[in-house]
Amino acid sequence: MGNEKNTIRKVYMDNMATTRVLPEVLDAMLPYFRDVYGNPQSIHSWGDEAREAIESAREQVAALVGGDAEEIIFTSSGSEANNLAVKGLAQGQITKGKHIIISAIEHFSVLHAARTLEKAGFEITEVPVDKYGFVDPDEVARNIKKETILVSVMHANGEVGTIEPIADIARKVKEAGALFHTDAVASAGSIPVDVNKLGVDALSLAGNEFYGPKGSGALWVRKRVRVIPLMDGGVQEGGRRPGTENVAAIVGMGKAAEVALKDIPARGEKLSRMRDRLIKGLPAAIDHVFLTGHPTERLPQHASFCVEFIEGEGMLLWLDRDGIAVSSGSACTSKALKASHVLIAMGIPHEKAQGSLLFGLGVDNNEADIDYVLEKLPPIVNRLRQMSPLYAKFMKEKR
Amino acid sequence: MGNEKNTIRKVYMDNMATTRVLPEVLDAMLPYFRDVYGNPQSIHSWGDEAREAIESAREQVAALVGGDAEEIIFTSSGSEANNLAVKGLAQGQITKGKHIIISAIEHFSVLHAARTLEKAGFEITEVPVDKYGFVDPDEVARNIKKETILVSVMHANGEVGTIEPIADIARKVKEAGALFHTDAVASAGSIPVDVNKLGVDALSLAGNEFYGPKGSGALWVRKRVRVIPLMDGGVQEGGRRPGTENVAAIVGMGKAAEVALKDIPARGEKLSRMRDRLIKGLPAAIDHVFLTGHPTERLPQHASFCVEFIEGEGMLLWLDRDGIAVSSGSACTSKALKASHVLIAMGIPHEKAQGSLLFGLGVDNNEADIDYVLEKLPPIVNRLRQMSPLYAKFMKEKR
Repeated sequence: MGNEKNTIRKVYMDNMATTRVLPEVLDAMLPYFRDVYGNPQSIHSWGDEAREAIESAREQVAALVGGDAEEIIFTSSGSEANNLAVKGLAQGQITKGKHIIISAIEHFSVLHAARTLEKAGFEITEVPVDKYGFVDPDEVARNIKKETILVSVMHANGEVGTIEPIADIARKVKEAGALFHTDAVASAGSIPVDVNKLGVDALSLAGNEFYGPKGSGALWVRKRVRVIPLMDGGVQEGGRRPGTENVAAIVGMGKAAEVALKDIPARGEKLSRMRDRLIKGLPAAIDHVFLTGHPTERLPQHASFCVEFIEGEGMLLWLDRDGIAVSSGSACTSKALKASHVLIAMGIPHEKAQGSLLFGLGVDNNEADIDYVLEKLPPIVNRLRQMSPLYAKFMKEKR
Repeated sequence: MGNEKNTIRKVYMDNMATTRVLPEVLDAMLPYFRDVYGNPQSIHSWGDEAREAIESAREQVAALVGGDAEEIIFTSSGSEANNLAVKGLAQGQITKGKHIIISAIEHFSVLHAARTLEKAGFEITEVPVDKYGFVDPDEVARNIKKETILVSVMHANGEVGTIEPIADIARKVKEAGALFHTDAVASAGSIPVDVNKLGVDALSLAGNEFYGPKGSGALWVRKRVRVIPLMDGGVQEGGRRPGTENVAAIVGMGKAAEVALKDIPARGEKLSRMRDRLIKGLPAAIDHVFLTGHPTERLPQHASFCVEFIEGEGMLLWLDRDGIAVSSGSACTSKALKASHVLIAMGIPHEKAQGSLLFGLGVDNNEADIDYVLEKLPPIVNRLRQMSPLYAKFMKEKR
């Protein structure tokens, strides 16, 4: 976003919250609003064209994760995919047991879905993470018991960027005979994802995380794995997800998946170079700033920090005045203003977790944007610290 | 659809399955793909603009049904709204009882949601309908008992067009102290809908039924009525429907609601005139054709028939060759090829129900389209009857 507006540079770095729809993705969608507007279930040419478009998109999304088209269930979001995975797989295996393992840093759509199951009589174990946010595969294995039917650990964490050792975890889960789901909403489209190399039974993804439209999501579920629908109704998505298909969104997600599959290497190289400039540059320019998540085993577009003695929201508001959009944690919880459960689980103290700052870089960003952030953030931090009682206390004690 | 293509007229009359997005609706949506692409939960100007757009759309959708904006929960479809209503209201009132009443002609998203609740220990009563598809308010009242927590009867039936006496039913339900939900997916945007005049506690609607985009739906729920979410996750929609908001679809539904509210009288007049030509013209042009649903207490855009001795699908395929799109029942079940539960509940014999044909007229249709259908359908019916063993048997017995 190098365009100028009222002499303020506009720099969108909130791509973990959601991305801009690529022009070629929107172009692919438009005919499905304007001309091919039939119901995909209808028996006439308008319906046939819509149905064929969905099936092409299903191939494209399946290709992005290395699965088969028939294993893709389109949903309206990554959160819906996660709910369908956790609740649908658990309900589908209920005759085998009622124990579920998740990690402590799952997205709320997994964490809260598990808590809802807990109220319905399931037993939930939350495995801890280390200071980088890593889940230990052995820790997962130690918690598996005869009644364990499902383990859900995310592929990459959206708040701290850490990429989990999913293949290692999945191997241990599969040896024990349980199902394994991974939430790949933050990773799919950004780094290579292959359901067979990962060895998972189900995987969630969201189109709006890789330059597709909002309202597009999918759950890949391995053939012959039983998933009970969240909703009842028509025959759409093989009877697993009712409601008139959102054809344009599905087509857009398909196109975005196709572009991502091709562009992942180039995007990754460009984004990780900019990411590393932030990771190196911000702690150099500002005292008492530390990276959250792992320095290298992280998403290429992801740089996250804790800025001590001040709160994230204050920084967001001042950065916005300089035309910079970032976030202070998951978009799904940002209004709640509580310290992130992810940072707390990683052992970061509550008061430091409050100063969390998350840069989600995107294909529109360039090196000049990084320069701009490195120029604009330090004076904002200084200004906020001048007003911070915590900082005054720290400086007083230091003297 | 008066446009010519390869000399074949294109006549889309499947508007009960889904409608074309109006150009002004698409125009309203486009900025939310191209420019205002922030996450509505984000704390920066990109997010602020997206959030404001959603709140404007909430006002527009609330105005269409006479409710307050804060009572609107946006969903991804009418089916999701129905699931949220039936399951969410039932689970929310579970301490008061476990008895639910629905009608025999509800959409599968209500009917099957109720059956899922039945498996979970709820008791479901299905009230019958008469030959027009009317639910008798007294019959509902007779079935209400102390444990009845919820009654769900649709506002208008999408397959036969009949408009139910919702205000009368709701009055009796409210007197008995239960909640009342109505599925207004087929009616909202086509005829006046006012939640207070109807006296309901919850009402489902879908944007794609009134020239808004697919992927847009809403549940209106009266203030202080408890509804348990279908999905868990973030704080969106007041914590009642998680997942990144589909901003463009919501904006499109809002715009479509605004247009509908203004145009309902004019649309109704134009559509019902064309509808009545079909209702009069088809039985006059073809023997052994009868109207389904009530002749006048029906949706203005809706003309549905049973054509005896042949199957609906054959007619659909031949009509499609003449460029005419219609349906043979609910789009959500069309592939199943079973006789419609709606027609069966109205007392129509199975073999006659197989020949169902549904014309969903729309704002793009004109009188010449009606002429075209009245010209093209009779020879198709004749041709199919020449191949029909049922027709041969009938003619033989007649002689």
